[in-house]
Amino acid sequence: MELNAEMEFAALDRLIDSVWNDILTHSRLAQSIRTGSISHELYMIYMIETFHYTSHNARNQAATGVMHAHHPVYAKFCFEHAAEETGHERMALHDLGSMGPKGTDLALPPPLPATETLIAYLYWISTQGNPYRRLGYSYWAENSYRYILPLVRGVKEALRLSDSQLTFFIAHSDIDDAHARHVRAMIERTCRNGEDWQMLSEAAETSLRLTGRMLEAVYDQYELLQEGRPSRYDHVRRQLLAKP
Amino acid sequence: MELNAEMEFAALDRLIDSVWNDILTHSRLAQSIRTGSISHELYMIYMIETFHYTSHNARNQAATGVMHAHHPVYAKFCFEHAAEETGHERMALHDLGSMGPKGTDLALPPPLPATETLIAYLYWISTQGNPYRRLGYSYWAENSYRYILPLVRGVKEALRLSDSQLTFFIAHSDIDDAHARHVRAMIERTCRNGEDWQMLSEAAETSLRLTGRMLEAVYDQYELLQEGRPSRYDHVRRQLLAKP
Amino acid sequence: MELNAEMEFAALDRLIDSVWNDILTHSRLAQSIRTGSISHELYMIYMIETFHYTSHNARNQAATGVMHAHHPVYAKFCFEHAAEETGHERMALHDLGSMGPKGTDLALPPPLPATETLIAYLYWISTQGNPYRRLGYSYWAENSYRYILPLVRGVKEALRLSDSQLTFFIAHSDIDDAHARHVRAMIERTCRNGEDWQMLSEAAETSLRLTGRMLEAVYDQYELLQEGRPSRYDHVRRQLLAKP
Amino acid sequence: MELNAEMEFAALDRLIDSVWNDILTHSRLAQSIRTGSISHELYMIYMIETFHYTSHNARNQAATGVMHAHHPVYAKFCFEHAAEETGHERMALHDLGSMGPKGTDLALPPPLPATETLIAYLYWISTQGNPYRRLGYSYWAENSYRYILPLVRGVKEALRLSDSQLTFFIAHSDIDDAHARHVRAMIERTCRNGEDWQMLSEAAETSLRLTGRMLEAVYDQYELLQEGRPSRYDHVRRQLLAKP
Repeated sequence: MELNAEMEFAALDRLIDSVWNDILTHSRLAQSIRTGSISHELYMIYMIETFHYTSHNARNQAATGVMHAHHPVYAKFCFEHAAEETGHERMALHDLGSMGPKGTDLALPPPLPATETLIAYLYWISTQGNPYRRLGYSYWAENSYRYILPLVRGVKEALRLSDSQLTFFIAHSDIDDAHARHVRAMIERTCRNGEDWQMLSEAAETSLRLTGRMLEAVYDQYELLQEGRPSRYDHVRRQLLAKP
Repeated sequence: MELNAEMEFAALDRLIDSVWNDILTHSRLAQSIRTGSISHELYMIYMIETFHYTSHNARNQAATGVMHAHHPVYAKFCFEHAAEETGHERMALHDLGSMGPKGTDLALPPPLPATETLIAYLYWISTQGNPYRRLGYSYWAENSYRYILPLVRGVKEALRLSDSQLTFFIAHSDIDDAHARHVRAMIERTCRNGEDWQMLSEAAETSLRLTGRMLEAVYDQYELLQEGRPSRYDHVRRQLLAKP
Repeated sequence: MELNAEMEFAALDRLIDSVWNDILTHSRLAQSIRTGSISHELYMIYMIETFHYTSHNARNQAATGVMHAHHPVYAKFCFEHAAEETGHERMALHDLGSMGPKGTDLALPPPLPATETLIAYLYWISTQGNPYRRLGYSYWAENSYRYILPLVRGVKEALRLSDSQLTFFIAHSDIDDAHARHVRAMIERTCRNGEDWQMLSEAAETSLRLTGRMLEAVYDQYELLQEGRPSRYDHVRRQLLAKP
Repeated sequence: MELNAEMEFAALDRLIDSVWNDILTHSRLAQSIRTGSISHELYMIYMIETFHYTSHNARNQAATGVMHAHHPVYAKFCFEHAAEETGHERMALHDLGSMGPKGTDLALPPPLPATETLIAYLYWISTQGNPYRRLGYSYWAENSYRYILPLVRGVKEALRLSDSQLTFFIAHSDIDDAHARHVRAMIERTCRNGEDWQMLSEAAETSLRLTGRMLEAVYDQYELLQEGRPSRYDHVRRQLLAKP
C-alpha cells in the first residue's frame, strides 16, 4: 500500500470512530442496552427497521455495478458483494419471528421516515456522483462489529435470547471480516486522488449519521408505545409479544 | 425434475432449434463462412457489434436481480451470473485488436440500430413484466455453442486466426457449460406455471430473432464497405486492416 | 431556418417517406384495408397493440426530460409534450370497447413481442445516447396522418364505424398538427451538427421500421385466429365480437 | 370538499406549521436574518445549496408521473407541474451571479451531504411507495412563502439587494400561488383513505425537516469560513465576494 492510502485510511478510521462515539454516547437505544433496561418492544422496533434497510443493501450494491460497468474490476466486486448480501434481511426477519409464536406471518409496518431517508441516500450514492461513494458505506458497515457486538451481547443477556435468535448479528460478524478486507482492497484500487477519498469519506460519514438518526427515531417510536399512544407497531407487537 | 418441466424444456429446445435453423439457413454471414468467403472486414464488423451488445449483458443481468429482490434465490443467481459475465466484452475487444497493429486504441463506431434494438429489448425483459424472462435469453445464449462453434472454426480457418485471437468464443464455450446447467436449474426452480413458461419462451425466441436481425444488419454494412460507399466502419477498418 | 437545417429536414423527409412506402406496400394489414377485406378481428388486434405501445408514449417522452434536464428548453418541451400525450391510450381503449357490448371490462392480452420490442427501443432512445433521438420518433409520428388517414377512412367504411368509434385517430390528427410544428422547431433548436442529425435520423427510421414489424406481427396473429388455432386474443374476441 | 378532506388538510396545515416554527426558531440562519447579522457569505452558501436541490425538482416531479402513468389525471398534473418548474434553478444561479462581477462562470462546489440527503429523499418518495407522497412535498413547498418572504425581506435589507437580484424568491412567490391551488385540488382528488393521507403527511414532514437540516449544514459551513478554515466554498467566494 502506498503511504498515501495508509494515511487516508487512518484519517477515515478516525472520522468513523468519532462518529460512532458520538452516536453511541447519545443514542438512547445504546444507553438502554448499557443499563440493561432494553425491552423486547424496543428491540423489536429496532429489528423491524433493520430488516427494512437491510432488504435494500444487495440491491443498491448491485445497482452500483450496473451504473459503473466501464470499470469491470469494480463492477464485478459490486455484483459478487451483492450476491453475498442477498437475502440477509431474512435473518433479521427470522430473529424477529423467534420472539413470538412459531409460524406467525408478521404484519410489518412500513419503514420509518428516518429509515427511508437512509435507504434513499444509499441508492443515491450507489447510482449518482463519484462511483466509489458506496464503498464508504461498506467500509464502516463491514467494520462495525467492534462497535455493535458489545451491544448485541447486552441485548442477548437482558432479553435472554439464544444464539439461534441472533442469527443476523452472529452471521454478519463472521461474513463481514472477509468483506471488510475486500472492501479495503477495492478502495485502495479505485480511489486515485483526493477527490475520490473526499467523496468516499463524506458518504461514509453521512450514511453512518443517518443510521444514528434511525436509532433515535426507533427510540421515539418506543416512547410512543410506552406512553400507550397509537403506534404503527401495535399490530406486530400483538403478534410477537402478546401476553396470555 | 417433474414430467411437466421436462416437457416444457423439450418444447423450448425445439423452438430454439427451429429459430437457429431459420437464422443459420438464411444468414448471409453464416453462408459466407460455410463457403469460405468470409473476409476480415465482415468478421471485424461482426465482432464490433458483438462487443457492443456483450458490454451490456452483465448489467442487464444484474438489473434483473435489482428488480426482483423479493426472490432471494433468483436475485443471488442474477448477481453471481452478472459477476461472471462482467468484462467479457474485453475479450471481444482483444480479439478485434489482434487483427491490427499492437496497442492501437480502436475508434469503434456506435452500435448499429439492430444491435441497439437487441440491447434495448434485453434491458426491457430484465426489468419489466414476468421476472423470469431474462432466463429465456440466458437459456439459448448459454447453449449456443453447438450452433456457433462450427462457424467459429470456419472463421478461424478462412482468416487463419490462432486460438489466442479467438478468446471471446473459446473462453465462452468453456464457461458457458456450467452456466447452462445453472440456468436450467434456475428455470426449473422459478417457472411455476404455464404463463411463466410462455413468457420465458417468448423472450427466448424474440431475443434470438433480434440477434439474427443483427447478423443481417452486419452483412448490410459489409455490403456498403464492399461497394466502396461511406461507412461508419471506415475509420476502424483503416486502423485494423490497412494494407501497407 | 438555416439552409443546413432545411437540407437536413428534406433528407429526413425523404428517408421517412421511403420507409413508409416500403411498409405500406408490403404490409398485409394495409393491403387488406385497400382491398376492403379488413375484418373486425384484424382491426381489434391492431387496436390492442396500438393501445399497448401508446400507453408508454407519455412516459418515455417525460423520461427524456428527466434524463436531459441540463437543457431546460428541451426538458420543458419534453414535459409539456408528455402532459399532452398522457392518457391517449384511453382513446384506443374506448374505440376498442365501442365494438362490443357497453361497459365490458376488456381482458387484454399482454403486448406482442414485436410491440414490446418497439416499446423497449423507445425507452432506450429516450434515456440513452444522443439526447435528441426521441425527437426522431416524434417527427415521423406527428407527421404520420397523411399516411394513416386514408387507411382509417378505409377501415371506417369497411367496418361501418362512426366517428365516435374512431376517437383515437381523429383526435390525434387534430392534436398532432400543432405538435408536429413544435417538434420541428425543437429539432431546429437542438440539432447542432451532423452527428445529431445522423442519430436522430437513425432513431426515426428504426422506430418506424419496428412499427412496421408490429403491423406484420398483428397480421400473423390474425392468421392464427383465421385458422381457428389457439390465440392470445381468444378471450377478448369473445368479449367484443361474440355473435348471438 | 368533503368534511373529511377539510379535516385532513387542517391537520396537515397544523403539522407543517409546527415543523416550520420548530425550524425557524432554532435555525441559526433564520436568527442571523432576524438580527440583521446575515452576511454575503452566508447568503451565498444558502443560495448555492438552494440551486443544487432546486435543479432536481422538475426531474423528480416528472419521474413521479413516469412511475404512475396508470392514473392519467395525476400523471398529467406531474408533467405539467414539471414543465413549469423546469429551469428555475437558473434563477438561483442568476441571483448568485449578481453578487459578483458580470459574466463570471461560477465554480460551484458539489452539494453538501445534507442537500444530497434531501435530493435523494425527494427522488425516493417520487418513485417508490405510495404514489401521492410527492404531493406532500409540493404542498408545503408551494405554501412556504408566508414563512420565507419575511426572511427574504430581511436579507434584502441587510445585504442591500435589489429585486432584480432576488428573482428566485420573487418569481416563485407569484408562480406558486396558482401551483398551491393545483396541488391542493390534486390531493383532494387522489387521497382516498387514511393511509394516503398518512403517507403524504409523513413525506411532507420528512422533506421539510430535511430542508431544515440543510439550513443547519449551511450554517456549519459558514462557521468554517468565518474561522478561516479550508472550505469547499473558498473558490466561489473569491469569484463572487473578493475585495479589491
